[in-house]
Amino acid sequence: MLSRTSFSVSRTRARLSLSSSALPLPAPSLCLRVRPLSLATPRQRSSAMSTFKQEPHKLLVIPGPIEVTDEVLYANAHPSMSHVSADFIPVFGDCIRMLRELLFTQDAQPFIIAGSGTLGWDQVAANLVEPGENALVLNSGYFGDSFSDCLRTYGAKVDEIVAPFGDAVALSDLEAALKQKKYKVVTFTHVDTSTGVLSDAKGIAAAVKKVSPDTLVVADCVCSVASEEIRFDEWGLDIVLTASQKGLGTPPGLSVLVASQKAVKVFETRATPVTSYYGSWKKWLPIMKAYESGSAAYFATPPVNLIYAFNASLRQITKQSPSVEERFRLHRETSARIKKAAEELGLKQLPVKPSVAANGMTACYFPEGLTAADLIPSLVKKDVVVAAGLHKDYKLKYFRIGHMGISAIDSSRGDVDKVIAALKESLAEAKAGKNA
Amino acid sequence: MLSRTSFSVSRTRARLSLSSSALPLPAPSLCLRVRPLSLATPRQRSSAMSTFKQEPHKLLVIPGPIEVTDEVLYANAHPSMSHVSADFIPVFGDCIRMLRELLFTQDAQPFIIAGSGTLGWDQVAANLVEPGENALVLNSGYFGDSFSDCLRTYGAKVDEIVAPFGDAVALSDLEAALKQKKYKVVTFTHVDTSTGVLSDAKGIAAAVKKVSPDTLVVADCVCSVASEEIRFDEWGLDIVLTASQKGLGTPPGLSVLVASQKAVKVFETRATPVTSYYGSWKKWLPIMKAYESGSAAYFATPPVNLIYAFNASLRQITKQSPSVEERFRLHRETSARIKKAAEELGLKQLPVKPSVAANGMTACYFPEGLTAADLIPSLVKKDVVVAAGLHKDYKLKYFRIGHMGISAIDSSRGDVDKVIAALKESLAEAKAGKNA
Repeated sequence: MLSRTSFSVSRTRARLSLSSSALPLPAPSLCLRVRPLSLATPRQRSSAMSTFKQEPHKLLVIPGPIEVTDEVLYANAHPSMSHVSADFIPVFGDCIRMLRELLFTQDAQPFIIAGSGTLGWDQVAANLVEPGENALVLNSGYFGDSFSDCLRTYGAKVDEIVAPFGDAVALSDLEAALKQKKYKVVTFTHVDTSTGVLSDAKGIAAAVKKVSPDTLVVADCVCSVASEEIRFDEWGLDIVLTASQKGLGTPPGLSVLVASQKAVKVFETRATPVTSYYGSWKKWLPIMKAYESGSAAYFATPPVNLIYAFNASLRQITKQSPSVEERFRLHRETSARIKKAAEELGLKQLPVKPSVAANGMTACYFPEGLTAADLIPSLVKKDVVVAAGLHKDYKLKYFRIGHMGISAIDSSRGDVDKVIAALKESLAEAKAGKNA
Repeated sequence: MLSRTSFSVSRTRARLSLSSSALPLPAPSLCLRVRPLSLATPRQRSSAMSTFKQEPHKLLVIPGPIEVTDEVLYANAHPSMSHVSADFIPVFGDCIRMLRELLFTQDAQPFIIAGSGTLGWDQVAANLVEPGENALVLNSGYFGDSFSDCLRTYGAKVDEIVAPFGDAVALSDLEAALKQKKYKVVTFTHVDTSTGVLSDAKGIAAAVKKVSPDTLVVADCVCSVASEEIRFDEWGLDIVLTASQKGLGTPPGLSVLVASQKAVKVFETRATPVTSYYGSWKKWLPIMKAYESGSAAYFATPPVNLIYAFNASLRQITKQSPSVEERFRLHRETSARIKKAAEELGLKQLPVKPSVAANGMTACYFPEGLTAADLIPSLVKKDVVVAAGLHKDYKLKYFRIGHMGISAIDSSRGDVDKVIAALKESLAEAKAGKNA
């Protein structure tokens, strides 16, 4: 029966329940053949794929976005597809499964949402920390500042342990802080993209488990997933949040987060309503579960093409050679090679010691007397695009080289050779110019 | 000087200011030649573009995502680019400028953010409505329910005027409500994708201006931008929010919002802090201004490839033939043709009268005795993908056809012919099957 127009006083109107906001859609199960979800079944490819080559371009070696494969870009150019179609559902479902595999977790819950890595902070702040609860941020650079800002926006009481510039927070300082106060979450930046500082994810998780086992361990792994070793279950992480455009080898536009079942439980038993709408797990959890189980549900239209691209990249990372473990080793080797070359060129790194230096990027001070203007445009002329500094206090003093994904693991591309050669030439030219 | 490790009690640590959170990056201005921003300068194209054809696929005629052009998909497969490079900055800047042109506004402020259309609601709820303020939602379907839910999440006191199923809210009811209470915002769904109901955007804006001129007029135009006529300045709209995958002819993954200067002022003079981080205009406004002015600033990595794709589609819409005005006419004509065909096939539409029926989609009840399972899979076999119902009370009773973008305006594709022919055949087969 059609309802009549009513000017209802709807403050009393009930909130949409979790089940009604995640409407199961009838279309796919009714109308389209169910494709097998097995990862062993390769996606159908036309001959067009084998001929697609991305356009010639400057080598992009910033700490994300990174160079991506032709196959990933071709997947990003997939014809438009219904987000609830039987063809698309397993593409999404397989992303969820492969993400678990990549992070070495059996049962953690992935969330894949249109957004940037930043949205992962909102997810943590709005779903896991209730207003007034304590959060401890281990701050090793720009992204620690920002995570604190985000947590405060949603009402958390934030303490920070700020590492010296170029260093990670000492585990002894973390333990001391945990003994003084009860924290709902401890957050850290696995690799701070602003400085290239690597934090000891395993050690941090162990310290939290030892001193304050109820506290959730939140790892901002935007610049580390698929380039640094991460063992979700073994290390006892509760959140790994990241984005598509770094080690994951996909164009930017996906917020990717994985939550332990402990974290999901904390969310499910929170006392107050979730304080975000777009970032609410109340909305997204049923969607992720639906896609993984082979059906579709609707909250917001997923970024279909990016999911195809993400699927293509995750398939290359988890199903093809080299293996995930081998990838970690290759990232370490590439990093060592670039850092050695930088050292030989007289470039001092931001990280104060090798143990706190990332393996997917390198941050170096400009040599005495040179600035960004002396070096970066010269590298661009040699078709090598590096990144300027980002940390607020030091951004004019250093530059950053990204070496994640295919640039790091596929030596046949010659990306590393090209970077080192260009750096050598540009430095020589810059110094010659200053001396002229 | 390097700071020492400090376990600082940082509740007192100052929030990042607007200017420091949107760090101006030195790289582009320092190192790369500045490209002219003029839209008259076509982007360089390699010969690869002219040979790129998307893979054969079923015709997608759901109310978004829609069929997109080869050029847009090719742009989505752009090689990875730095989000702060001099090459990319004008691509983003031109999107902002073309969006203004498309909506017939001189000075409104666009926001283009990685996300879905849903994120537009968060932007409105978190930036424009302070906790405890009144919002009036004109509810013409599923998306009215959701917008209310979002507004309440951020603390608004929401009243709704719920239209009868298949109808829009009467302007007289709106005026009566505005006379009873002061509202910070009035929201409406221009085209409710769940029902295909079109609201009178111009009339609603005029009624608000007449009765309550301070109230902001918020139009959810997810399913109407570039398919329905919208005149932002002339009608006096304050917010138009949409997404990339409907009339805008781009893959999904962009939240696209345009705010009047009046709305920006309301945001800038709010008394309480913005209640979202990822959706905060405090973060995004300086970013949008930077990209438009030809420099780069960083808050979160923009979805670079999608911005290239969006640029390609906006260029086709605003710079090529047919004109924007002509596109409105072609959408109306296509819509009339499909609705007439549906009527001739005995299909009753959800909208209760032609004046409340959208021009970019058509929602029809299944004929008596037939269900989704009788019709939708049969259409898929004919390579035509339509959408099932979505409105919670009626979703099993109807289906939806999208006719936006190239399917509506490029008759040489034959999409409309194909849809009508398939519909005719599938209905005949279904009825024959029932009678067999």
